[in-house]
Amino acid sequence: MLTIYGDVISGNCYKVKLIAELTGRAYDWRHVDVVAGETRTSEFLALNPNGKIPLIVLENGERLAESNAILHFLAEGSDYLPAAPLARAKVLQWLFFEQYSHEPAIAVARYIIRYLKRPPEMAARLAATVDAGHKALKVMETQLAKTPFLTGETFTIADIALFAYTHVAHEGDFDLTPYPAIEGWLGRVKAQPGFVPMG
Amino acid sequence: MLTIYGDVISGNCYKVKLIAELTGRAYDWRHVDVVAGETRTSEFLALNPNGKIPLIVLENGERLAESNAILHFLAEGSDYLPAAPLARAKVLQWLFFEQYSHEPAIAVARYIIRYLKRPPEMAARLAATVDAGHKALKVMETQLAKTPFLTGETFTIADIALFAYTHVAHEGDFDLTPYPAIEGWLGRVKAQPGFVPMG
Repeated sequence: MLTIYGDVISGNCYKVKLIAELTGRAYDWRHVDVVAGETRTSEFLALNPNGKIPLIVLENGERLAESNAILHFLAEGSDYLPAAPLARAKVLQWLFFEQYSHEPAIAVARYIIRYLKRPPEMAARLAATVDAGHKALKVMETQLAKTPFLTGETFTIADIALFAYTHVAHEGDFDLTPYPAIEGWLGRVKAQPGFVPMG
Repeated sequence: MLTIYGDVISGNCYKVKLIAELTGRAYDWRHVDVVAGETRTSEFLALNPNGKIPLIVLENGERLAESNAILHFLAEGSDYLPAAPLARAKVLQWLFFEQYSHEPAIAVARYIIRYLKRPPEMAARLAATVDAGHKALKVMETQLAKTPFLTGETFTIADIALFAYTHVAHEGDFDLTPYPAIEGWLGRVKAQPGFVPMG
């Protein structure tokens, strides 16, 4: 059986839970408390030298890290990942956008506010997330004003990756009211057959 | 013919040049001066709403952004990207590691030092790159002490992605002397048939 090391408060871990549920895979969820520092223990670092969750371990003992690489692997052969090279590359374009331009702003703001309780020494870092986060949301809004999902007509892992932290962006003080296309898209993702909420 | 919008000072753009050369593709290179702000003009934003290079445009007019998505697309069907799902996912694991844990430290330090000339208001941001950069280098060193390339015995786009900024890490004040496995790997990448240097 697939083993998933994760923490339900993490959007990156939620991506893996959601694709496992959507593709009907049985899995064993091993809780790793990220706020308590359990990703930095020597035992966990032996599993993932980069000290991050999510991490999956396959039945044969092979390990895979990085939420979006895991999404890609678990979606292989399903409708959530197109097979044609250019269509697949466009999914990857959004996955890299998510990790470089979206997550470091929106997920980090949420983590500082909700889980670290806004420590004063992180004020500058938190302030820096505001512009970057709205810039990322504008890029999504531009696309979603044109197509129902990020890569076009079809729900893919690009939507799963961006949904993970966008649907809890308010916990990072991002108001989505100015982004009606994003709000409509959030509803379409939640309406997917087999959808499960975070947590 | 393939069109590549890029700037030769950018490691992210160099990745695209290197895979195009290695796979023997003809391309038209369009210079976009990133330091002069040419990625933020309305003309460029019409091509890539995220305002970043590299960007490729195919003969049929289709556009693709994000350096590592482009790498993946241009390597499809070649020896630089394995076809088996798990092997491919492990390549992607390193590509996401590069964009999340490596590039924001090492490439950003290089950009602040070499191109922005260490402006005093960026001192805190520059300082934050030091720990993050060495953490990323240690993860690479751990792997490269075990295998000649990042995913094992074979040179792949994972090596191209990490080579791009690691081989100029000294320009971001990162001394690679404590990382002998990385130094050996840099030599193996440079020795690949068809390798072309940055610039």
